[in-house]
Amino acid sequence: MKRILLTISYDGANFYGWQKQNEETRTVQGELEKAIEIISGEHCEVYGSGRTDAGVHALAQTAHFDLPVNIPISRLADVLNNLLPGDIAITNVEEVAPSFHARFSIKKKCYRYVINTSKIKDPFLASRMAFVKYPLDEEKMLKAASLIEGEHDFQGFCSAATCTDDFVRKVYSIKITKEDELYYFDVEGNGFLYNMVRIIVGTLVDVGRGKLSLESVKEALEFGDRSKAGVTMPAGGLYLKYTKY
Amino acid sequence: MKRILLTISYDGANFYGWQKQNEETRTVQGELEKAIEIISGEHCEVYGSGRTDAGVHALAQTAHFDLPVNIPISRLADVLNNLLPGDIAITNVEEVAPSFHARFSIKKKCYRYVINTSKIKDPFLASRMAFVKYPLDEEKMLKAASLIEGEHDFQGFCSAATCTDDFVRKVYSIKITKEDELYYFDVEGNGFLYNMVRIIVGTLVDVGRGKLSLESVKEALEFGDRSKAGVTMPAGGLYLKYTKY
Repeated sequence: MKRILLTISYDGANFYGWQKQNEETRTVQGELEKAIEIISGEHCEVYGSGRTDAGVHALAQTAHFDLPVNIPISRLADVLNNLLPGDIAITNVEEVAPSFHARFSIKKKCYRYVINTSKIKDPFLASRMAFVKYPLDEEKMLKAASLIEGEHDFQGFCSAATCTDDFVRKVYSIKITKEDELYYFDVEGNGFLYNMVRIIVGTLVDVGRGKLSLESVKEALEFGDRSKAGVTMPAGGLYLKYTKY
Repeated sequence: MKRILLTISYDGANFYGWQKQNEETRTVQGELEKAIEIISGEHCEVYGSGRTDAGVHALAQTAHFDLPVNIPISRLADVLNNLLPGDIAITNVEEVAPSFHARFSIKKKCYRYVINTSKIKDPFLASRMAFVKYPLDEEKMLKAASLIEGEHDFQGFCSAATCTDDFVRKVYSIKITKEDELYYFDVEGNGFLYNMVRIIVGTLVDVGRGKLSLESVKEALEFGDRSKAGVTMPAGGLYLKYTKY
Protein backbone atom coordinates (compact mmCIF):
# COMPACT_ATOMS: atom_id res chain seq x y z
CA MET A 1 0.00 0.00 0.00
CA LYS A 2 1.40 3.35 -1.10
CA ARG A 3 -0.05 6.79 -0.32
CA ILE A 4 -0.18 8.76 -3.56
CA LEU A 5 -0.47 12.53 -3.99
CA LEU A 6 -2.07 13.61 -7.26
CA THR A 7 -1.95 17.07 -8.80
CA ILE A 8 -5.05 17.58 -10.93
CA SER A 9 -6.20 20.19 -13.42
CA TYR A 10 -9.83 20.38 -14.51
CA ASP A 11 -12.30 22.48 -16.43
CA GLY A 12 -15.12 22.77 -13.89
CA ALA A 13 -17.80 23.79 -16.42
CA ASN A 14 -19.35 20.35 -16.73
CA PHE A 15 -18.89 19.09 -13.17
CA TYR A 16 -21.18 19.45 -10.20
CA GLY A 17 -18.07 20.39 -8.27
CA TRP A 18 -15.35 18.32 -6.66
CA GLN A 19 -17.30 16.32 -4.11
CA LYS A 20 -18.85 12.98 -5.00
CA GLN A 21 -22.62 12.95 -4.71
CA ASN A 22 -24.50 10.08 -6.33
CA GLU A 23 -24.05 7.83 -9.35
CA GLU A 24 -25.78 10.17 -11.83
CA THR A 25 -24.01 13.36 -10.82
CA ARG A 26 -20.73 14.08 -12.60
CA THR A 27 -18.09 15.18 -10.07
CA VAL A 28 -14.28 15.33 -10.20
CA GLN A 29 -13.83 13.09 -7.16
CA GLY A 30 -16.31 10.61 -8.62
CA GLU A 31 -14.49 10.45 -11.97
CA LEU A 32 -11.11 10.02 -10.24
CA GLU A 33 -12.40 7.19 -8.05
CA LYS A 34 -13.91 5.43 -11.09
CA ALA A 35 -10.56 5.60 -12.95
CA ILE A 36 -8.57 4.44 -9.89
CA GLU A 37 -10.97 1.54 -9.31
CA ILE A 38 -10.25 0.29 -12.85
CA ILE A 39 -6.52 0.03 -12.16
CA SER A 40 -6.68 -1.08 -8.53
CA GLY A 41 -9.64 -3.45 -8.77
CA GLU A 42 -11.22 -2.03 -5.63
CA HIS A 43 -12.75 1.21 -4.43
CA CYS A 44 -10.18 3.73 -3.14
CA GLU A 45 -11.46 6.91 -1.49
CA VAL A 46 -9.82 10.07 -2.89
CA TYR A 47 -9.23 12.93 -0.42
CA GLY A 48 -8.99 16.39 -1.98
CA SER A 49 -7.24 19.44 -0.52
CA GLY A 50 -10.75 20.88 -0.31
CA ARG A 51 -13.94 21.03 -2.34
CA THR A 52 -14.50 23.22 -5.34
CA ASP A 53 -18.05 24.22 -6.28
CA ALA A 54 -19.90 23.45 -9.49
CA GLY A 55 -18.32 25.43 -12.35
CA VAL A 56 -15.10 26.23 -10.44
CA HIS A 57 -11.89 25.18 -12.21
CA ALA A 58 -8.53 23.91 -10.98
CA LEU A 59 -5.08 24.57 -12.39
CA ALA A 60 -3.49 22.44 -9.65
CA GLN A 61 -5.85 20.81 -7.17
CA THR A 62 -4.21 18.17 -4.97
CA ALA A 63 -5.64 14.95 -3.58
CA HIS A 64 -4.34 11.76 -1.98
CA PHE A 65 -5.40 8.12 -1.97
CA ASP A 66 -3.94 4.76 -0.95
CA LEU A 67 -2.95 2.59 -3.89
CA PRO A 68 -3.29 -1.11 -3.05
CA VAL A 69 -1.58 -2.46 -6.18
CA ASN A 70 2.01 -2.32 -7.33
CA ILE A 71 1.98 0.00 -10.34
CA PRO A 72 5.15 2.04 -11.01
CA ILE A 73 4.52 5.63 -9.87
CA SER A 74 6.14 6.89 -13.08
CA ARG A 75 3.41 5.20 -15.16
CA LEU A 76 0.45 6.23 -13.05
CA ALA A 77 -0.21 9.68 -14.58
CA ASP A 78 -0.35 8.30 -18.14
CA VAL A 79 -2.53 5.36 -17.15
CA LEU A 80 -4.99 7.58 -15.25
CA ASN A 81 -5.05 10.25 -17.99
CA ASN A 82 -6.06 7.62 -20.52
CA LEU A 83 -8.89 6.45 -18.28
CA LEU A 84 -10.12 9.91 -17.24
CA PRO A 85 -12.40 12.12 -19.37
CA GLY A 86 -10.79 14.93 -21.41
CA ASP A 87 -11.72 17.67 -18.95
CA ILE A 88 -9.63 16.21 -16.09
CA ALA A 89 -5.83 15.87 -16.33
CA ILE A 90 -3.36 14.45 -13.83
CA THR A 91 -0.33 16.73 -14.04
CA ASN A 92 1.82 15.15 -11.31
CA VAL A 93 1.98 11.97 -9.23
CA GLU A 94 4.24 11.35 -6.23
CA GLU A 95 4.43 9.01 -3.30
CA VAL A 96 3.98 10.63 0.11
CA ALA A 97 4.35 9.48 3.72
CA PRO A 98 1.46 7.42 5.18
CA SER A 99 0.80 10.29 7.60
CA PHE A 100 0.33 12.82 4.79
CA HIS A 101 -3.21 14.12 4.26
CA ALA A 102 -4.16 16.30 1.27
CA ARG A 103 -6.53 18.38 3.39
CA PHE A 104 -5.06 18.39 6.89
CA SER A 105 -1.37 18.74 5.91
CA ILE A 106 -2.01 21.86 3.84
CA LYS A 107 -0.14 25.09 4.66
CA LYS A 108 -1.22 27.52 1.94
CA LYS A 109 -3.74 27.65 -0.85
CA CYS A 110 -4.07 30.09 -3.70
CA TYR A 111 -7.10 30.87 -5.85
CA ARG A 112 -7.09 32.92 -9.01
CA TYR A 113 -10.14 34.86 -10.15
CA VAL A 114 -10.34 36.14 -13.73
CA ILE A 115 -12.40 39.16 -14.80
CA ASN A 116 -12.88 40.37 -18.36
CA THR A 117 -13.76 44.06 -18.77
CA SER A 118 -14.28 43.85 -22.53
CA LYS A 119 -17.67 45.01 -23.76
CA ILE A 120 -17.48 42.46 -26.59
CA LYS A 121 -19.18 39.17 -25.77
CA ASP A 122 -17.00 36.08 -26.40
CA PRO A 123 -19.02 32.84 -26.20
CA PHE A 124 -15.83 30.78 -25.80
CA LEU A 125 -14.93 32.58 -22.56
CA ALA A 126 -18.37 32.46 -20.91
CA SER A 127 -17.60 29.58 -18.53
CA ARG A 128 -13.97 30.66 -17.98
CA MET A 129 -14.17 34.20 -16.56
CA ALA A 130 -16.61 36.83 -15.28
CA PHE A 131 -17.52 39.73 -17.54
CA VAL A 132 -17.67 43.10 -15.75
CA LYS A 133 -18.91 46.00 -17.84
CA TYR A 134 -18.09 48.79 -15.38
CA PRO A 135 -14.75 50.59 -15.36
CA LEU A 136 -12.75 49.52 -12.31
CA ASP A 137 -10.60 51.89 -10.25
CA GLU A 138 -7.46 49.89 -9.59
CA GLU A 139 -6.21 52.22 -6.81
CA LYS A 140 -9.42 51.74 -4.85
CA MET A 141 -9.34 47.96 -5.34
CA LEU A 142 -5.77 47.83 -4.02
CA LYS A 143 -6.80 49.81 -0.93
CA ALA A 144 -9.71 47.43 -0.28
CA ALA A 145 -7.40 44.43 -0.84
CA SER A 146 -4.95 45.71 1.78
CA LEU A 147 -7.81 45.96 4.29
CA ILE A 148 -8.75 42.32 3.63
CA GLU A 149 -5.20 40.94 3.76
CA GLY A 150 -4.16 39.57 7.16
CA GLU A 151 -5.85 37.52 9.86
CA HIS A 152 -9.54 38.31 10.36
CA ASP A 153 -12.85 36.80 11.33
CA PHE A 154 -14.28 36.37 7.81
CA GLN A 155 -17.91 35.75 8.80
CA GLY A 156 -18.87 38.77 6.67
CA PHE A 157 -17.15 37.17 3.67
CA CYS A 158 -18.75 33.77 3.46
CA SER A 159 -22.01 32.24 2.40
CA ALA A 160 -24.70 31.70 5.05
CA ALA A 161 -24.40 27.98 4.19
CA THR A 162 -20.87 27.80 5.68
CA CYS A 163 -20.67 24.88 8.11
CA THR A 164 -18.11 25.96 10.69
CA ASP A 165 -17.88 27.72 14.03
CA ASP A 166 -14.40 29.10 13.33
CA PHE A 167 -14.41 31.97 10.87
CA VAL A 168 -10.83 33.13 11.48
CA ARG A 169 -8.61 32.79 8.41
CA LYS A 170 -5.40 34.42 7.33
CA VAL A 171 -5.17 35.96 3.85
CA TYR A 172 -1.45 36.19 3.12
CA SER A 173 -1.79 38.28 -0.01
CA ILE A 174 -4.16 39.55 -2.68
CA LYS A 175 -2.37 40.37 -5.93
CA ILE A 176 -4.10 42.18 -8.76
CA THR A 177 -2.59 41.93 -12.24
CA LYS A 178 -4.00 43.66 -15.32
CA GLU A 179 -3.30 42.31 -18.81
CA ASP A 180 -5.13 44.20 -21.54
CA GLU A 181 -8.81 43.74 -20.73
CA LEU A 182 -8.28 41.01 -18.14
CA TYR A 183 -7.85 41.34 -14.39
CA TYR A 184 -6.29 38.47 -12.44
CA PHE A 185 -6.91 38.37 -8.68
CA ASP A 186 -4.58 35.95 -6.89
CA VAL A 187 -5.70 35.34 -3.32
CA GLU A 188 -3.37 33.28 -1.11
CA GLY A 189 -4.37 32.20 2.37
CA ASN A 190 -4.14 29.45 4.98
CA GLY A 191 -7.68 28.37 4.17
CA PHE A 192 -10.95 29.73 2.85
CA LEU A 193 -14.59 29.64 3.95
CA TYR A 194 -17.46 28.73 1.64
CA ASN A 195 -17.61 31.27 -1.24
CA MET A 196 -14.96 33.40 0.51
CA VAL A 197 -12.76 34.10 -2.54
CA ARG A 198 -15.78 34.87 -4.73
CA ILE A 199 -17.04 37.35 -2.08
CA ILE A 200 -13.59 38.92 -1.60
CA VAL A 201 -13.32 39.53 -5.36
CA GLY A 202 -16.94 40.73 -5.52
CA THR A 203 -16.10 43.21 -2.77
CA LEU A 204 -13.03 44.47 -4.66
CA VAL A 205 -15.11 44.84 -7.84
CA ASP A 206 -17.92 46.68 -6.02
CA VAL A 207 -15.33 49.04 -4.49
CA GLY A 208 -13.61 49.42 -7.87
CA ARG A 209 -16.82 50.44 -9.62
CA GLY A 210 -17.73 52.89 -6.84
CA LYS A 211 -20.71 50.96 -5.48
CA LEU A 212 -19.14 50.11 -2.10
CA SER A 213 -17.01 52.29 0.20
CA LEU A 214 -13.80 51.28 1.96
CA GLU A 215 -15.68 52.08 5.19
CA SER A 216 -18.22 49.39 4.33
CA VAL A 217 -15.41 46.84 3.76
CA LYS A 218 -13.98 47.70 7.21
CA GLU A 219 -17.42 47.16 8.74
CA ALA A 220 -17.88 43.82 6.98
CA LEU A 221 -14.58 42.70 8.54
CA GLU A 222 -15.15 44.23 11.96
CA PHE A 223 -18.76 43.19 12.55
CA GLY A 224 -18.90 40.04 10.36
CA ASP A 225 -21.75 41.67 8.45
CA ARG A 226 -22.24 39.96 5.07
CA SER A 227 -24.47 42.80 3.83
CA LYS A 228 -21.54 45.24 4.09
CA ALA A 229 -19.35 43.17 1.73
CA GLY A 230 -19.77 42.91 -2.05
CA VAL A 231 -21.52 40.48 -4.37
CA THR A 232 -20.59 36.80 -4.75
CA MET A 233 -18.87 36.53 -8.13
CA PRO A 234 -19.94 33.69 -10.46
CA ALA A 235 -18.21 30.29 -10.19
CA GLY A 236 -16.77 30.20 -13.74
CA GLY A 237 -14.12 32.88 -13.07
CA LEU A 238 -12.54 30.94 -10.17
CA TYR A 239 -9.49 28.67 -10.42
CA LEU A 240 -7.75 26.76 -7.63
CA LYS A 241 -4.24 27.82 -8.60
CA TYR A 242 -2.02 25.87 -6.18
CA THR A 243 -1.75 24.30 -2.76
CA LYS A 244 1.36 24.23 -0.59
CA TYR A 245 2.29 21.59 1.98
CA MET B 1 -41.71 43.62 -41.20
CA LYS B 2 -37.97 43.54 -41.83
CA ARG B 3 -35.89 40.51 -42.82
CA ILE B 4 -32.84 40.40 -40.55
CA LEU B 5 -29.58 38.51 -41.11
CA LEU B 6 -27.73 37.60 -37.92
CA THR B 7 -24.09 36.54 -37.64
CA ILE B 8 -23.72 34.32 -34.60
CA SER B 9 -20.78 32.84 -32.70
CA TYR B 10 -21.29 30.03 -30.20
CA ASP B 11 -19.45 27.53 -28.06
CA GLY B 12 -21.22 24.32 -29.04
CA ALA B 13 -20.09 22.30 -26.00
CA ASN B 14 -23.33 22.71 -24.08
CA PHE B 15 -25.81 22.67 -26.94
CA TYR B 16 -27.58 19.73 -28.56
CA GLY B 17 -26.64 21.35 -31.83
CA TRP B 18 -28.24 24.14 -33.83
CA GLN B 19 -31.65 22.69 -34.57
CA LYS B 20 -34.57 23.22 -32.19
CA GLN B 21 -35.92 19.99 -30.74
CA ASN B 22 -38.18 20.22 -27.71
CA GLU B 23 -38.59 22.52 -24.73
CA GLU B 24 -36.09 20.69 -22.50
CA THR B 25 -33.29 20.40 -25.05
CA ARG B 26 -30.87 23.30 -25.21
CA THR B 27 -30.23 24.28 -28.84
CA VAL B 28 -28.83 27.42 -30.47
CA GLN B 29 -31.93 27.97 -32.63
CA GLY B 30 -34.15 27.47 -29.58
CA GLU B 31 -32.21 30.03 -27.49
CA LEU B 32 -32.27 32.56 -30.37
CA GLU B 33 -36.04 32.18 -30.85
CA LYS B 34 -36.63 32.61 -27.10
CA ALA B 35 -34.61 35.86 -27.06
CA ILE B 36 -36.30 37.19 -30.22
CA GLU B 37 -39.75 36.38 -28.83
CA ILE B 38 -39.00 38.56 -25.79
CA ILE B 39 -38.35 41.61 -27.96
CA SER B 40 -40.94 40.96 -30.69
CA GLY B 41 -43.78 39.68 -28.48
CA GLU B 42 -44.46 36.81 -30.83
CA HIS B 43 -42.76 33.65 -32.10
CA CYS B 44 -40.40 34.25 -35.05
CA GLU B 45 -38.87 31.23 -36.77
CA VAL B 46 -35.09 31.54 -37.20
CA TYR B 47 -33.59 29.98 -40.37
CA GLY B 48 -29.93 29.01 -40.12
CA SER B 49 -27.46 28.64 -43.01
CA GLY B 50 -27.44 24.98 -42.00
CA ARG B 51 -27.43 22.81 -38.91
CA THR B 52 -24.44 22.18 -36.71
CA ASP B 53 -24.31 19.02 -34.61
CA ALA B 54 -24.11 18.73 -30.83
CA GLY B 55 -20.69 19.96 -29.68
CA VAL B 56 -19.85 21.74 -32.97
CA HIS B 57 -18.92 25.42 -32.58
CA ALA B 58 -19.47 28.47 -34.77
CA LEU B 59 -17.21 31.44 -35.31
CA ALA B 60 -19.71 32.99 -37.74
CA GLN B 61 -22.92 31.07 -38.33
CA THR B 62 -25.59 33.05 -40.20
CA ALA B 63 -29.37 32.95 -39.84
CA HIS B 64 -32.32 35.07 -40.89
CA PHE B 65 -35.72 35.88 -39.40
CA ASP B 66 -38.52 38.37 -39.97
CA LEU B 67 -38.72 41.04 -37.29
CA PRO B 68 -42.31 42.23 -36.83
CA VAL B 69 -41.53 45.20 -34.55
CA ASN B 70 -39.77 48.47 -35.21
CA ILE B 71 -36.49 48.23 -33.28
CA PRO B 72 -33.48 50.12 -34.69
CA ILE B 73 -31.16 47.59 -36.39
CA SER B 74 -28.18 49.29 -34.75
CA ARG B 75 -29.52 48.39 -31.28
CA LEU B 76 -30.55 44.80 -32.06
CA ALA B 77 -27.19 43.08 -31.42
CA ASP B 78 -26.82 44.62 -27.95
CA VAL B 79 -30.41 43.88 -26.99
CA LEU B 80 -30.17 40.25 -28.14
CA ASN B 81 -26.73 39.73 -26.54
CA ASN B 82 -28.13 40.84 -23.19
CA LEU B 83 -31.01 38.37 -23.51
CA LEU B 84 -28.97 35.44 -24.81
CA PRO B 85 -26.88 33.11 -22.61
CA GLY B 86 -23.10 33.73 -22.37
CA ASP B 87 -22.18 30.96 -24.83
CA ILE B 88 -24.02 32.60 -27.78
CA ALA B 89 -23.00 36.00 -29.16
CA ILE B 90 -24.51 38.01 -32.00
CA THR B 91 -21.56 39.56 -33.82
CA ASN B 92 -23.41 41.32 -36.65
CA VAL B 93 -26.94 42.34 -37.60
CA GLU B 94 -28.07 43.65 -40.97
CA GLU B 95 -31.29 44.10 -42.90
CA VAL B 96 -31.58 41.99 -46.06
CA ALA B 97 -34.04 41.80 -48.96
CA PRO B 98 -37.32 39.92 -48.34
CA SER B 99 -36.20 37.33 -50.91
CA PHE B 100 -32.96 36.55 -49.03
CA HIS B 101 -32.76 33.13 -47.38
CA ALA B 102 -29.91 32.18 -45.01
CA ARG B 103 -29.85 28.62 -46.34
CA PHE B 104 -30.92 28.84 -49.98
CA SER B 105 -29.02 32.04 -50.88
CA ILE B 106 -25.69 30.64 -49.71
CA LYS B 107 -22.75 30.47 -52.14
CA LYS B 108 -19.85 29.23 -50.01
CA LYS B 109 -19.31 27.85 -46.57
CA CYS B 110 -16.09 27.24 -44.68
CA TYR B 111 -15.47 24.97 -41.73
CA ARG B 112 -12.33 24.91 -39.62
CA TYR B 113 -11.17 21.77 -37.83
CA VAL B 114 -8.57 22.03 -35.05
CA ILE B 115 -6.23 19.21 -34.08
CA ASN B 116 -3.77 19.25 -31.19
CA THR B 117 -0.79 16.92 -31.49
CA SER B 118 0.55 17.65 -28.01
CA LYS B 119 1.00 14.62 -25.79
CA ILE B 120 0.17 16.76 -22.76
CA LYS B 121 -3.49 16.66 -21.79
CA ASP B 122 -5.10 20.08 -21.33
CA PRO B 123 -8.53 19.84 -19.71
CA PHE B 124 -9.44 23.36 -20.87
CA LEU B 125 -9.09 22.37 -24.53
CA ALA B 126 -11.00 19.06 -24.37
CA SER B 127 -14.24 20.39 -25.91
CA ARG B 128 -12.42 22.76 -28.31
CA MET B 129 -10.15 20.53 -30.40
CA ALA B 130 -9.29 16.91 -31.13
CA PHE B 131 -6.14 15.43 -29.62
CA VAL B 132 -4.17 13.23 -32.04
CA LYS B 133 -1.21 11.43 -30.51
CA TYR B 134 0.29 10.09 -33.76
CA PRO B 135 2.86 12.05 -35.77
CA LEU B 136 1.24 13.37 -38.96
CA ASP B 137 3.00 13.46 -42.34
CA GLU B 138 2.03 16.85 -43.74
CA GLU B 139 3.14 16.00 -47.30
CA LYS B 140 0.86 12.98 -47.40
CA MET B 141 -2.06 14.94 -45.96
CA LEU B 142 -1.63 17.62 -48.64
CA LYS B 143 -1.69 14.95 -51.35
CA ALA B 144 -4.88 13.44 -49.95
CA ALA B 145 -6.41 16.95 -49.67
CA SER B 146 -5.72 17.65 -53.35
CA LEU B 147 -7.53 14.41 -54.26
CA ILE B 148 -10.59 15.52 -52.26
CA GLU B 149 -10.67 19.09 -53.59
CA GLY B 150 -12.99 19.63 -56.54
CA GLU B 151 -16.46 18.41 -57.48
CA HIS B 152 -17.18 14.83 -56.48
CA ASP B 153 -19.94 12.49 -55.40
CA PHE B 154 -19.20 12.50 -51.66
CA GLN B 155 -21.31 9.48 -50.70
CA GLY B 156 -18.13 7.88 -49.30
CA PHE B 157 -17.59 10.92 -47.09
CA CYS B 158 -20.87 11.21 -45.24
CA SER B 159 -22.70 9.51 -42.43
CA ALA B 160 -25.18 6.78 -43.31
CA ALA B 161 -27.82 9.00 -41.69
CA THR B 162 -27.51 11.61 -44.49
CA CYS B 163 -30.96 12.45 -45.83
CA THR B 164 -30.40 13.33 -49.47
CA ASP B 165 -30.32 11.76 -52.90
CA ASP B 166 -27.77 14.23 -54.24
CA PHE B 167 -24.27 13.57 -52.97
CA VAL B 168 -22.44 15.85 -55.40
CA ARG B 169 -20.66 18.74 -53.69
CA LYS B 170 -17.78 20.97 -54.67
CA VAL B 171 -14.89 21.43 -52.24
CA TYR B 172 -13.18 24.65 -53.37
CA SER B 173 -10.16 24.28 -51.13
CA ILE B 174 -8.65 22.46 -48.17
CA LYS B 175 -5.96 24.50 -46.44
CA ILE B 176 -3.73 23.02 -43.77
CA THR B 177 -1.93 25.39 -41.41
CA LYS B 178 0.43 24.30 -38.64
CA GLU B 179 1.07 26.51 -35.63
CA ASP B 180 3.29 24.87 -33.01
CA GLU B 181 1.38 21.76 -31.94
CA LEU B 182 -1.89 22.75 -33.61
CA TYR B 183 -3.12 21.89 -37.08
CA TYR B 184 -5.90 23.96 -38.63
CA PHE B 185 -7.85 22.42 -41.51
CA ASP B 186 -9.94 24.99 -43.40
CA VAL B 187 -12.38 23.33 -45.76
CA GLU B 188 -14.35 25.59 -48.09
CA GLY B 189 -17.13 24.27 -50.28
CA ASN B 190 -20.50 25.02 -51.85
CA GLY B 191 -22.18 22.80 -49.28
CA PHE B 192 -21.49 19.80 -47.07
CA LEU B 193 -23.21 16.50 -46.36
CA TYR B 194 -23.85 15.16 -42.87
CA ASN B 195 -20.49 14.68 -41.06
CA MET B 196 -18.65 15.38 -44.33
CA VAL B 197 -16.02 17.77 -42.91
CA ARG B 198 -15.35 15.51 -39.93
CA ILE B 199 -14.85 12.53 -42.30
CA ILE B 200 -12.65 14.56 -44.69
CA VAL B 201 -10.39 15.58 -41.81
CA GLY B 202 -10.45 12.03 -40.38
CA THR B 203 -9.33 10.78 -43.80
CA LEU B 204 -6.46 13.30 -43.92
CA VAL B 205 -5.41 12.29 -40.39
CA ASP B 206 -5.57 8.58 -41.19
CA VAL B 207 -3.44 9.19 -44.31
CA GLY B 208 -1.07 11.43 -42.31
CA ARG B 209 -0.48 8.75 -39.68
CA GLY B 210 0.03 6.07 -42.33
CA LYS B 211 -3.13 4.08 -41.59
CA LEU B 212 -4.81 4.83 -44.93
CA SER B 213 -3.35 4.93 -48.45
CA LEU B 214 -3.96 7.58 -51.10
CA GLU B 215 -5.32 4.72 -53.22
CA SER B 216 -8.00 4.10 -50.60
CA VAL B 217 -8.98 7.81 -50.67
CA LYS B 218 -9.33 7.60 -54.46
CA GLU B 219 -11.56 4.55 -54.09
CA ALA B 220 -13.72 6.23 -51.44
CA LEU B 221 -14.30 9.08 -53.91
CA GLU B 222 -14.71 6.90 -57.00
CA PHE B 223 -17.00 4.22 -55.58
CA GLY B 224 -18.70 6.18 -52.78
CA ASP B 225 -17.41 3.60 -50.34
CA ARG B 226 -17.50 4.94 -46.77
CA SER B 227 -15.28 2.10 -45.55
CA LYS B 228 -12.41 3.33 -47.74
CA ALA B 229 -12.41 6.80 -46.15
CA GLY B 230 -11.08 7.65 -42.67
CA VAL B 231 -12.64 8.00 -39.24
CA THR B 232 -15.26 10.60 -38.30
CA MET B 233 -13.43 13.12 -36.12
CA PRO B 234 -15.11 14.21 -32.87
CA ALA B 235 -17.54 17.17 -32.91
CA GLY B 236 -15.59 19.43 -30.52
CA GLY B 237 -12.81 20.22 -33.01
CA LEU B 238 -15.20 21.60 -35.64
CA TYR B 239 -16.03 25.30 -36.16
CA LEU B 240 -18.33 26.83 -38.76
CA LYS B 241 -15.89 29.58 -39.81
CA TYR B 242 -17.89 31.65 -42.30
CA THR B 243 -20.65 31.61 -44.89
CA LYS B 244 -20.69 33.64 -48.11
CA TYR B 245 -23.74 34.90 -49.97
